Amino acid sequence: MAIKRRKISVIGSGFTGATTALMLGQKELGDVVLVDIPQMENPTKGKALDMLEASPVQGFDSNIVGTSDFADTADSDIVVITAGIARKPGMSRDDLVNTNAGIMKSVTEQVVKYSPESIIIVLTNPVDAMTYTVYKASGFPKHRVIGQSGVLDTARFRTFVAQELNVSVEDVTGFVLGGHGDDMVPLVRYSYAGGIPLEKLIPKDRLDAIVDRTRKGGGEIVNLLGNGSAYYAPAASIVQMVEAILKDKKRILPSIAFLEGEYGYDGLYLGVPTILGGAGIEKVIELELTAEEKQQLDQSADSVRNVMKVLG
Amino acid sequence: MAIKRRKISVIGSGFTGATTALMLGQKELGDVVLVDIPQMENPTKGKALDMLEASPVQGFDSNIVGTSDFADTADSDIVVITAGIARKPGMSRDDLVNTNAGIMKSVTEQVVKYSPESIIIVLTNPVDAMTYTVYKASGFPKHRVIGQSGVLDTARFRTFVAQELNVSVEDVTGFVLGGHGDDMVPLVRYSYAGGIPLEKLIPKDRLDAIVDRTRKGGGEIVNLLGNGSAYYAPAASIVQMVEAILKDKKRILPSIAFLEGEYGYDGLYLGVPTILGGAGIEKVIELELTAEEKQQLDQSADSVRNVMKVLG
Amino acid sequence: MAIKRRKISVIGSGFTGATTALMLGQKELGDVVLVDIPQMENPTKGKALDMLEASPVQGFDSNIVGTSDFADTADSDIVVITAGIARKPGMSRDDLVNTNAGIMKSVTEQVVKYSPESIIIVLTNPVDAMTYTVYKASGFPKHRVIGQSGVLDTARFRTFVAQELNVSVEDVTGFVLGGHGDDMVPLVRYSYAGGIPLEKLIPKDRLDAIVDRTRKGGGEIVNLLGNGSAYYAPAASIVQMVEAILKDKKRILPSIAFLEGEYGYDGLYLGVPTILGGAGIEKVIELELTAEEKQQLDQSADSVRNVMKVLG
Amino acid sequence: MAIKRRKISVIGSGFTGATTALMLGQKELGDVVLVDIPQMENPTKGKALDMLEASPVQGFDSNIVGTSDFADTADSDIVVITAGIARKPGMSRDDLVNTNAGIMKSVTEQVVKYSPESIIIVLTNPVDAMTYTVYKASGFPKHRVIGQSGVLDTARFRTFVAQELNVSVEDVTGFVLGGHGDDMVPLVRYSYAGGIPLEKLIPKDRLDAIVDRTRKGGGEIVNLLGNGSAYYAPAASIVQMVEAILKDKKRILPSIAFLEGEYGYDGLYLGVPTILGGAGIEKVIELELTAEEKQQLDQSADSVRNVMKVLG
Repeated sequence: MAIKRRKISVIGSGFTGATTALMLGQKELGDVVLVDIPQMENPTKGKALDMLEASPVQGFDSNIVGTSDFADTADSDIVVITAGIARKPGMSRDDLVNTNAGIMKSVTEQVVKYSPESIIIVLTNPVDAMTYTVYKASGFPKHRVIGQSGVLDTARFRTFVAQELNVSVEDVTGFVLGGHGDDMVPLVRYSYAGGIPLEKLIPKDRLDAIVDRTRKGGGEIVNLLGNGSAYYAPAASIVQMVEAILKDKKRILPSIAFLEGEYGYDGLYLGVPTILGGAGIEKVIELELTAEEKQQLDQSADSVRNVMKVLG
Repeated sequence: MAIKRRKISVIGSGFTGATTALMLGQKELGDVVLVDIPQMENPTKGKALDMLEASPVQGFDSNIVGTSDFADTADSDIVVITAGIARKPGMSRDDLVNTNAGIMKSVTEQVVKYSPESIIIVLTNPVDAMTYTVYKASGFPKHRVIGQSGVLDTARFRTFVAQELNVSVEDVTGFVLGGHGDDMVPLVRYSYAGGIPLEKLIPKDRLDAIVDRTRKGGGEIVNLLGNGSAYYAPAASIVQMVEAILKDKKRILPSIAFLEGEYGYDGLYLGVPTILGGAGIEKVIELELTAEEKQQLDQSADSVRNVMKVLG
Repeated sequence: MAIKRRKISVIGSGFTGATTALMLGQKELGDVVLVDIPQMENPTKGKALDMLEASPVQGFDSNIVGTSDFADTADSDIVVITAGIARKPGMSRDDLVNTNAGIMKSVTEQVVKYSPESIIIVLTNPVDAMTYTVYKASGFPKHRVIGQSGVLDTARFRTFVAQELNVSVEDVTGFVLGGHGDDMVPLVRYSYAGGIPLEKLIPKDRLDAIVDRTRKGGGEIVNLLGNGSAYYAPAASIVQMVEAILKDKKRILPSIAFLEGEYGYDGLYLGVPTILGGAGIEKVIELELTAEEKQQLDQSADSVRNVMKVLG
Repeated sequence: MAIKRRKISVIGSGFTGATTALMLGQKELGDVVLVDIPQMENPTKGKALDMLEASPVQGFDSNIVGTSDFADTADSDIVVITAGIARKPGMSRDDLVNTNAGIMKSVTEQVVKYSPESIIIVLTNPVDAMTYTVYKASGFPKHRVIGQSGVLDTARFRTFVAQELNVSVEDVTGFVLGGHGDDMVPLVRYSYAGGIPLEKLIPKDRLDAIVDRTRKGGGEIVNLLGNGSAYYAPAASIVQMVEAILKDKKRILPSIAFLEGEYGYDGLYLGVPTILGGAGIEKVIELELTAEEKQQLDQSADSVRNVMKVLG
């Protein structure tokens, strides 16, 4: 009956997966298993060992291991899925969707086998459809399959606003609905600095520019890096969701949740405000939307449905 | 007369430099300027922006910026130098030394110009000789030019011991003198778990194996990664030194320090126990060594001198 | 030119002052000097030593000392004033005001003498008038003399709302203007859970009850304790303001600030939203108020003026 | 099957119990129930509420509640017992022992009833005998009933050494066996600064003085306070033990453990080095002692036995 450390498995040992593992360790949220395919086993072990060697200096006790054997993930409390390919030049969107959906199914089968009680958080793009794929493949109840996009989108928005106003990032909040990036539906009227609506603090054209920069925030990093995409802020975003669940914090965070009637949608994964606690998504918070917001959210839902059609 | 944030510049935006910047931000130690050459300006900006976008989620206020313009580093409290090339197949050691020494001189010139009161921490390999090069090029007093190797070596040692004994990394300490890796002089008799000398807890052959693994700890990661070298634990090690200085903690940490008579060496940078505080290296702690330890340290000093000869 | 630790002096070693000292140490914000009158010198030294003895276990390097000699506070970056008497049975409000004003003048004289560049934060009640007294006695510019009340009031409000909704305290914000307690002007329309206005989440009668409980929040603790008043949340509130300043975080926090025209008041200390950074109060943020809010704020200002009249 | 927060109950809402509750909350180790007798119910509720109101500012989600009803402690993971009376003028030691033993039995009965799977940590003095009393009354296996004294004694020792050498508290370690205070058996040869034995860094007379001051460390605080005893460092010490267990850190910390043959003692609770993890005391570490150390430890054991005789 001894008290056990929590256990988190991170599927995919690329930059995002690896940075997620590091940040989970730094917060001493539990032991971490970083998983990748057999061809990547050694680099995965190398990254995990390097992180573990940082633990005496940073003062955390988390056993971080790299592996290609899903058996090592057994009895995880949470599984984070970052695996998947990025779109390459010449690749159609449909090819991307189908390839990543195949990866999701294969990964989910292993997750279900080894951690049947776990909560799954999905980051792989296109994230709404991939979360749906995992949901279907897992047979898990909807509250235990969650997608990440809104925490990251609002993190970027908050960064730009804090810079604009020259104030602490701790005092800026943002609010988004819908899909990631272009499909994002920003609710600027629910975004504040020190509790003051941003519309009272920032001229409309500047605020529009910030919203636009947020929409294209992933692309901005891709363009700067030249090779690869963002991983620090994405990893931090996942870790915040993991922490909310493992500490049963009941945080109000945007998640990609399975809707069954909420906001007028049914049978669809879409970004909405949720309460994240020990059970996963403990509640979807419904808000009244303006006509314009509802229209944007409909477009966002249509985008998701279009990707889902590819999946057949 | 307003209170200003501390400022740390990190030269070199590779994995180690970038991870250092992240960890400095996470600890809110000050604003961070990540610098690389003009050809790398965009990726450097991309990494810095990605980290900054993690700050609202992780709750820290550190302005992290990427640049190729040293003017942005002006008035840094601390400058960390990670710039330099890694040894490539077919490259002689002398070529490596001379190339990196050239980079050190060029970087130091800029550091001196823009941050004449700063404290410099060097990580570039071969680190003893590179720290010496920076010392000479800077004209700074010796206590303000410091090399890192021992914190990392002991971090690896502590990791392996904690695993061997299945105890917290917080309760294991290690002690090394001399150079990095092969030239490391481990003082196992000054290494403990919970204050108990390791020799009483771990059989000699196992302890020897752990020491040997520590010596080759950098190579172990290189072999696993297949492409590149360790960066998580190296970055954490630098950040611990930076924190000790910026918070004037007076921590007893192994540093590469300029010796003028200590341990019987003169005019040489070598790894020794030091007190790190607001002035940089505030003290070199001298210990009595056994004949065997002294002999090993002599060899380590010889290695350093041999590299210094290459520099002429 | 070595980097020095920040220094914070806390005047008054009662529960609030002592808890403030502890929390400053825990956050490693600098060295702490806890000051009280000569008759309290030994207990003050005892509390400081007890805290210092917690530092190895909690892992912070802050020299915490107790003293009755103001010379020990020399060159403080920040001085927190918690000294003063509480109202006793049979004591008139005017007696309380005059006694504490006398203490403020005496303390301020010492602060000015030993730390002429410091920023002062006042907690002593009645806090608006006492902050004014310190301002006048110090001759410091207004941005360097600050009163605390709003951080505490909103902390209580946030606690009650988080309980009501069963959500994380991290996601609830509150907003107040004006004086402490009964004179508090709550701006519920600028208070949120997860960015959603509370009015949409909590029925009006419940929200009114929460506002009312917040107003009487100090009294609730006094009644429960039976002997003494709150100190944990007040100390945490001060420490948040100190941290905002020492780390130049530019946080948007409610402060008691000297108004010269803002909100239509002149020559008065009153609770308003401010930006706290390395210079102290770097900005007073002005908001449009509803007629009702303005009327309540006028009442609050009248209360302050009435106390100031006592001071003559 | 949702993930639940850990739960810690603290019995006794005096300064030590209350400060323990605060520090448990600050570290977000779980929900905290602070318990005292019905006559103290309101002050206990008051302290708990005041702490809870600090949580939005300090950013932790721990429900801290005060109560006099043990039913509220149901299913605690850990129960900390700080209840008991302090020795008053004119009170014999035997009276103190018997009174506190009665309190221990009464408290333990409730703990067993409501949290039969919990781990108990005892702080009440005389702590060795009181831990034994709880052990017997609980019927729990020995690894789940633990006393605290060595973490506090070493914390004081480390503080004094860090001051003597002007180095970080993080780099100083201490090692004690046996009882608390006068009965403490310091193993100075296992105490270090930066891994260097203290005997090489501090002259013998100074080191002796530090050991002596440590022995009398509790009395030093009592004398300074004039009224009451230490609570900051004692609370921090308990919290470190709780954290080691709840995070299954496997820390090597001195605990008061039930010995069955270890160090040559049988059927006795005595301070020894232990590994603290998810099961409680997972191991007692045995060391070879010098003749002098063994003699001192015998005396310490005799003291414990003498107190146990009082209990009959």
